Amino acid sequence: MPASPFSWLDEEARRRHRDGLVRTLRPRPAASDLLDLAGNDYLGLARHPEVTSAAAAAAREWGGGATGSRLVTGSTRLHAELEGELAAFCGFEAALVLSSGYAANLAAVTALAPHGTLVVSDAGNHASLIDGCRLARGTTQVVPHADPQAVRKALGTRAGPAVAVSDTVFSVDGDAAPLAGLAAACRAYGAGLVLDDAHGLGVLGAGGRGAPHAAGLAGASDVVATVTLSKSLGSQGGAVLGPARVIDHLVNTARTFIFDTGLAPAAAGAALAALRLLRREPGRAGRVRAVAAALHAGLTAEGLEAVRPDAAVVSVRAASPERAVRWAADCRAAGVAVGCFRPPSVPDGVSRLRLTARADLTDAQVDRAVRVVSAARR
Amino acid sequence: MPASPFSWLDEEARRRHRDGLVRTLRPRPAASDLLDLAGNDYLGLARHPEVTSAAAAAAREWGGGATGSRLVTGSTRLHAELEGELAAFCGFEAALVLSSGYAANLAAVTALAPHGTLVVSDAGNHASLIDGCRLARGTTQVVPHADPQAVRKALGTRAGPAVAVSDTVFSVDGDAAPLAGLAAACRAYGAGLVLDDAHGLGVLGAGGRGAPHAAGLAGASDVVATVTLSKSLGSQGGAVLGPARVIDHLVNTARTFIFDTGLAPAAAGAALAALRLLRREPGRAGRVRAVAAALHAGLTAEGLEAVRPDAAVVSVRAASPERAVRWAADCRAAGVAVGCFRPPSVPDGVSRLRLTARADLTDAQVDRAVRVVSAARR
Repeated sequence: MPASPFSWLDEEARRRHRDGLVRTLRPRPAASDLLDLAGNDYLGLARHPEVTSAAAAAAREWGGGATGSRLVTGSTRLHAELEGELAAFCGFEAALVLSSGYAANLAAVTALAPHGTLVVSDAGNHASLIDGCRLARGTTQVVPHADPQAVRKALGTRAGPAVAVSDTVFSVDGDAAPLAGLAAACRAYGAGLVLDDAHGLGVLGAGGRGAPHAAGLAGASDVVATVTLSKSLGSQGGAVLGPARVIDHLVNTARTFIFDTGLAPAAAGAALAALRLLRREPGRAGRVRAVAAALHAGLTAEGLEAVRPDAAVVSVRAASPERAVRWAADCRAAGVAVGCFRPPSVPDGVSRLRLTARADLTDAQVDRAVRVVSAARR
Repeated sequence: MPASPFSWLDEEARRRHRDGLVRTLRPRPAASDLLDLAGNDYLGLARHPEVTSAAAAAAREWGGGATGSRLVTGSTRLHAELEGELAAFCGFEAALVLSSGYAANLAAVTALAPHGTLVVSDAGNHASLIDGCRLARGTTQVVPHADPQAVRKALGTRAGPAVAVSDTVFSVDGDAAPLAGLAAACRAYGAGLVLDDAHGLGVLGAGGRGAPHAAGLAGASDVVATVTLSKSLGSQGGAVLGPARVIDHLVNTARTFIFDTGLAPAAAGAALAALRLLRREPGRAGRVRAVAAALHAGLTAEGLEAVRPDAAVVSVRAASPERAVRWAADCRAAGVAVGCFRPPSVPDGVSRLRLTARADLTDAQVDRAVRVVSAARR
């Protein structure tokens, strides 16, 4: 019998094993005593009864799925309601909901960077923005991380249409992009600005309206934002926010919108309920930032090397992938779940523990997390 | 004030308008008297009480969202259960659930076609397979539609690793791929075969086990399938099915798996309930094929040019995009919703009405649909 065409994967698996880079799924139970500082449920809304009830009600009223592309049978009035409230909350003219933040980023970048467009992309951008750049027909130039001067220089290399693309808060280290500088650079060259606010919505800006709102960029005719419904809004899905002409263009051209089934009603309902809850309880945004600051203060007081958080993510350096894995495992054994980022998920090759703040953590839980992470250090 | 960098979109919008290619969202109400022959809810399960109850129960038990990447906090025991039952049902060794069929196709193609791989792709493949080929580091060669001889020829042009990629049922015309011929071509050259069974699961094969199962290819060491949970299973999401070594490789390398939030629990719960229902009521698969055949027979008896359906999709040719739009609008006005495919969604530029059969349509509803579509012809 000939070897399978996929037998080369076994060598890849051996290499991962040798390098300490094996990833394994660890399905969790519905209830657990673990203190969760690994997920992205920043506002503690994923299990909020209003959110889960809204998900359940939407499934019962609208069905288990959207049944088709948003352009065929997959648009419900629930989607339209969510889009209207999301755009209004974040300060944009219009919004378009897709099945994931990944799909939203692919849609925004590909639709706004056709052939002949220069795309200037931050070196620390999320995988979905990078893949958006690769799928786009325009030409991408990667610039050093969080460097408006580099963006300016890149934009100056070419005449013709251009967009700059950046996360507002970078997922690995939790640091914020220099939005004012980026916007000034883009405006100096007439370029558009596409911002992924996945980690900003619900955390930054007045009442969690997001980083573009905080920077005075929301609703500008030259700014497009993407958000995810799966972090602060405790659900699933993503959205593109921007001028109506941009949203209209996406409806007509974005492949990950046109050729994908619409977001499931339960997810749209959950996100809408979370958004309304955040509007009613705007203090959740400030609380998650305070929790992140307290985590950072506690960890650095213990001598650990942590990046000062600009949002909800607190990144702590580890000496190697193996040590990061053992460190995270020891935290888990002591009752605290933390994230562990290793290559290839970290562009600079530096392994980290990644702690995420949640608005619903108590001060006592923050203290416990700091104690456990410090004691388990490697 | 300078022009917005996005003002070029207005010219694009004018061009679309001029060419009769404007796409508009039409959010639907929760309840409607329209007879739906436009959605992809092939088995009529999206609104089945068992499915919607399972979605609701999963949201209440597990939360509104998965809270993180499947590799961090986003894997629940519900996901694992769904993956186990889906793999067993379709006859594959293992399965991996992603947030959409689009994401599943991007994952499968990119992970299995690294640099140096030849990807042979059918000219009629779905947008998500095409984007997978574009994102993959391998080199893609597009071959004529449904032509195993062309695949063989393409595979013969190069030594080294190769995969062929094809839909099992093509979404536009609903025609089936020549799976036996494709598999033979791949095996002659030691190439892998990646099949998108989005329109086959629940419709083709014994009890709806899908096209690879029907062709005797399920579980083979050289075959990988992708499916969607948003069509026959009435939910949202996608999955990759294949040898365990392939699934393990995807967990470790597929960017749309690693860098995306896990599928929402409600969607996983709905899909699992639908799968169990299909296992209990295997006749649904035969019924949807019978409904499609009856639609085709009725429409051709009325003199319309319809493609003989291999699965649930019945495609009817229209003379122009404008006529297709008016035809579909007249059907809707008469109470029957049908899909309308126009450029750029149709690779050959031919506009079509697209009718989809559902297992829960009565014979009287099929007759009514045929009457309405025929009477409204343009």
